[in-house]
Amino acid sequence: MTTDSHTSSTSSVSSPYDTYATLQVSVVDGIAWVTMDSPPVNVLSLKLIADLSRFAAAVRHDEQVQVIVLQSANPNFFIAHVDMELVNQWEEAARVAAELFPEPSPLNVFQQLNEQWRTLPQITIGKLQGLVRCGGSELAMALDMRFAARGQAGIGQTEVLMGIVPGGGATAYLPRLIGRARALEVIAGANLFDADLAERYGWINRALPAEELDSFVATLARQMAALAPGVARAAKQAVDSVHEPLPVALAQGDALWQQLVFQPIATSKILGGLAAGAQTPAGERDLEGLLRSL
Amino acid sequence: MTTDSHTSSTSSVSSPYDTYATLQVSVVDGIAWVTMDSPPVNVLSLKLIADLSRFAAAVRHDEQVQVIVLQSANPNFFIAHVDMELVNQWEEAARVAAELFPEPSPLNVFQQLNEQWRTLPQITIGKLQGLVRCGGSELAMALDMRFAARGQAGIGQTEVLMGIVPGGGATAYLPRLIGRARALEVIAGANLFDADLAERYGWINRALPAEELDSFVATLARQMAALAPGVARAAKQAVDSVHEPLPVALAQGDALWQQLVFQPIATSKILGGLAAGAQTPAGERDLEGLLRSL
Amino acid sequence: MTTDSHTSSTSSVSSPYDTYATLQVSVVDGIAWVTMDSPPVNVLSLKLIADLSRFAAAVRHDEQVQVIVLQSANPNFFIAHVDMELVNQWEEAARVAAELFPEPSPLNVFQQLNEQWRTLPQITIGKLQGLVRCGGSELAMALDMRFAARGQAGIGQTEVLMGIVPGGGATAYLPRLIGRARALEVIAGANLFDADLAERYGWINRALPAEELDSFVATLARQMAALAPGVARAAKQAVDSVHEPLPVALAQGDALWQQLVFQPIATSKILGGLAAGAQTPAGERDLEGLLRSL
Repeated sequence: MTTDSHTSSTSSVSSPYDTYATLQVSVVDGIAWVTMDSPPVNVLSLKLIADLSRFAAAVRHDEQVQVIVLQSANPNFFIAHVDMELVNQWEEAARVAAELFPEPSPLNVFQQLNEQWRTLPQITIGKLQGLVRCGGSELAMALDMRFAARGQAGIGQTEVLMGIVPGGGATAYLPRLIGRARALEVIAGANLFDADLAERYGWINRALPAEELDSFVATLARQMAALAPGVARAAKQAVDSVHEPLPVALAQGDALWQQLVFQPIATSKILGGLAAGAQTPAGERDLEGLLRSL
Repeated sequence: MTTDSHTSSTSSVSSPYDTYATLQVSVVDGIAWVTMDSPPVNVLSLKLIADLSRFAAAVRHDEQVQVIVLQSANPNFFIAHVDMELVNQWEEAARVAAELFPEPSPLNVFQQLNEQWRTLPQITIGKLQGLVRCGGSELAMALDMRFAARGQAGIGQTEVLMGIVPGGGATAYLPRLIGRARALEVIAGANLFDADLAERYGWINRALPAEELDSFVATLARQMAALAPGVARAAKQAVDSVHEPLPVALAQGDALWQQLVFQPIATSKILGGLAAGAQTPAGERDLEGLLRSL
Repeated sequence: MTTDSHTSSTSSVSSPYDTYATLQVSVVDGIAWVTMDSPPVNVLSLKLIADLSRFAAAVRHDEQVQVIVLQSANPNFFIAHVDMELVNQWEEAARVAAELFPEPSPLNVFQQLNEQWRTLPQITIGKLQGLVRCGGSELAMALDMRFAARGQAGIGQTEVLMGIVPGGGATAYLPRLIGRARALEVIAGANLFDADLAERYGWINRALPAEELDSFVATLARQMAALAPGVARAAKQAVDSVHEPLPVALAQGDALWQQLVFQPIATSKILGGLAAGAQTPAGERDLEGLLRSL
C-alpha cells in the first residue's frame, strides 16, 4: 500500500461508511476507496458478502461518489475465493441472502451481489495486487475495469477442481470479456493466470509494474472523479449501450451527448480550450494536459 | 509520406474526384487514396465533413474502386478532432447536415458521416501516422481497419475533458471493438493511447514501425484491390454477417461462397494453383505467393 | 511428436476407433487423441471429411471421452486446406455430403462438418504444429481452443486468392473470435499469420515454444479429463451461454452450479481442501496443486 492509497484511507473524517466489519471505506474528492480486510486471506464469507452488498446499496444513492476503487488491505490476496465453510452453512447462507436480496430472483446470492456491483451508476475499478480466485474473480469481473500488479497478482477460476462449475457469474462474464475459447480454457483448465497473461487474454485491462499499481489507479480514479458533473455517469451509461443493437446504441450515444453539449460548462470548456491553444500544433501535442489545466 | 504513397498520389491523371477543398483523391489500380489536407491540424470542420461525405456518396457507386485508404497530408495529425469552433456554429452545422443528409435520421451529423463510411461496399483502411482524437478517432473506427505508426501515432477519446461524452459513435463503436471494460477506461479516462497500447487493446489492427507503415498499407491495399472481381466486396459482406445469429451468418457465408465458387475464374485459379504445385509440400510452403503469381 | 503424444498414441489397446483411413485415434484416460494422417500435406479431402465426421458422430455418445485433441501426424501441416481437386468432383462431394448429413440443411458439407465438431459435448483442443489454411483453419476454429507452435505454425484464410470467399464458416467464426476489423484483414488480405501474431489477434488461445507444445497440450488435456464426472461437460455447456442475453446466461450458470454443488463429491473435495490447508496463506499459494492432489 503506497502513500497514495494510504493518504486516501486516512484523510476522510466524515465518511458515512464506517460501520462495516470487513471493509474500510473512505470517500475523498468523489472517490470511494473500499478496502477489504478480512484476515487471513479475505475469503468471500457471508460477512464480507453482507458488507459489500450493504455498501453497494448505500453508495448507489451517493451523488458525491463518482468512482469506486475496490482494493484489499492484504497485499497477497484480493479475495481468496468464496468461503469454503459455506458448504456446511447453506441455511445460514439462505438467511443472509434473503435479508440482503428480499426480492425473488432467478439468481443465487453470489450472482446477485455481483450484479448489484455491476449495475452501480458509479465507475468501479478493481485493484488486484495479490491473488484472486473463483468468487473473488467473479466480483472483480463485475467491476467496470481491473488493473493488476505484474509479478504479484494471480487470477484464477479454480472451481472445477472442487467438483463444481463457477456459480457466481464467471461462465457468463468471462466469455463476454475474453471470448469463448479462452474462457473455456480458463474455466475447465483451472490454472492460475499471472497479470501479463491475464492482460493478453483481456481478463484485466492492463498489467502494471507492481510498484506503479497504486499510483496508476489513483491517478485514473482522480481523473475520472474530476470530470464535470454527470459526465462520468453518462460515459458509463453510454458504454452500456453495447448490449443494444448498433442503431439503438448510436441513438443512445447521441441523446447522452446532446444532454451535455449544450450545457454552459461544456461551452466554457471548449472555448477555454480554444483560448488556451487547442487546434494549434503546439496546443494539440498534449491536449489532455491543456484541457485538464483549465 | 514515402515513395509508395507519393507515387500513388501523383500517377493518377483522370480522377473524377478532384473537386474537394480539404481532400486530395487519386484512384490507382482499384485503390482510392484519400488524403486529408486541412492545415494546421486537420480539424474535422464542416468543410472536411462535407468533403468526406460527398466523396463517400460518390465512391459508393464507383465499381472501379475496391479499396479506400484514408490518410493525412500532415504526418503529425490524422484528424485532430471535431472543430471546437462548432460550439459557436450550431446553425451553420445544422444547415450543412441538412444538405448532406436530407433524410430524417435519429443520428447526428457526425454519426451519419461515420455510418456513411462504415457502410461503404469497398474495403476501407485508416493509416494513422500522427495524432487522432475524438471525432477523428470515431471516423477511424468507422473504417474497416486501422494501422498506426509506432512511436508517432496517438489515439484518444478526449471528449469528457470538454464536459461531454463522445457524440460521433465512439460509445457504440469502441466497446464493440475492444470490449466494455477497456472502452470505459478509454472514454472516461481520456488519456492518449500510443500505437502499441492501442494494438494491445484491439483499438487498431496493428502497430507498425513508423518507417514501414506506408509500405505495409500500400501492399495490403494492393493485395485486396488485385482480387478477382467481386471478391473483396463479397469478403466484406460476408464478415458483416457477424451482426446476425450464427446460423444466419453461416448460411450467408455459404450463399456468398456459392456465388463465386462455380465461376470460371475460381475454377481456373484453383486448377492453375494445382498445376503450379499446390498440394505438394514445396508448393504449400508459400501458397500465397504461388496463387498470387498465377 | 514428443514422447507425450507418442505414448498416448500407442498405449491404447482396445480403441473402438480404429477403422479410419486418414485418422489414428487412441483413447487414454478420458482423452481421445485424434491424429490426422493423409500424406503428403493433409488436404481436407472427401476421405478425411468422412473420417472426421464419422469419428465425431461416434465420439459424441462416448461417455468415457471428456477431451478430444485434434493433431496431425505431419509436423509441417495440420491441414493444408480443402482438397482443390474437389473443383472437379462436385458430384462425388454431393454424394458424400448426402451420406454424412442426410438431414436437409441450409449449410454446405464443410460447414456441417465444422458445426458437428463445434457442438460436441466434449472439450476439443486443436494442436497446431505446422501450417493450416482455409478449410483447415475453419475446422480449427470449430474446436473449443487452439494452441500453436511458435516459429513453426502458420494459419491463413487464403481463399480469396482462389477467387472465392471462405465457404466453411470462417466468415462467421473469425469475426466472432477476433473482431470484425481483424477478421476482414485476415480474409481479404489472405496473408499467412505466424503463431505470435495469431495470438495477438486472438485467433489462437496461445503461441507456445515449439518444443513445449506437445507437453502443454497434454497437461491441459489431462487436467480437464481428470475432473470429477460431468464437470468438464458442464463447464463447456455453461460457457456456451455466451450466445444468450446476460440474465439468461447467469440463470443457466446458476442451474449448472446447483446441479453440482450439492453432490457428495463436491462436498468431499471442498472439505478435503479445507483439511489440506485451503484458506490459509500457505495453502492458498498453490491452491490448484493442493486441490489436484486430493
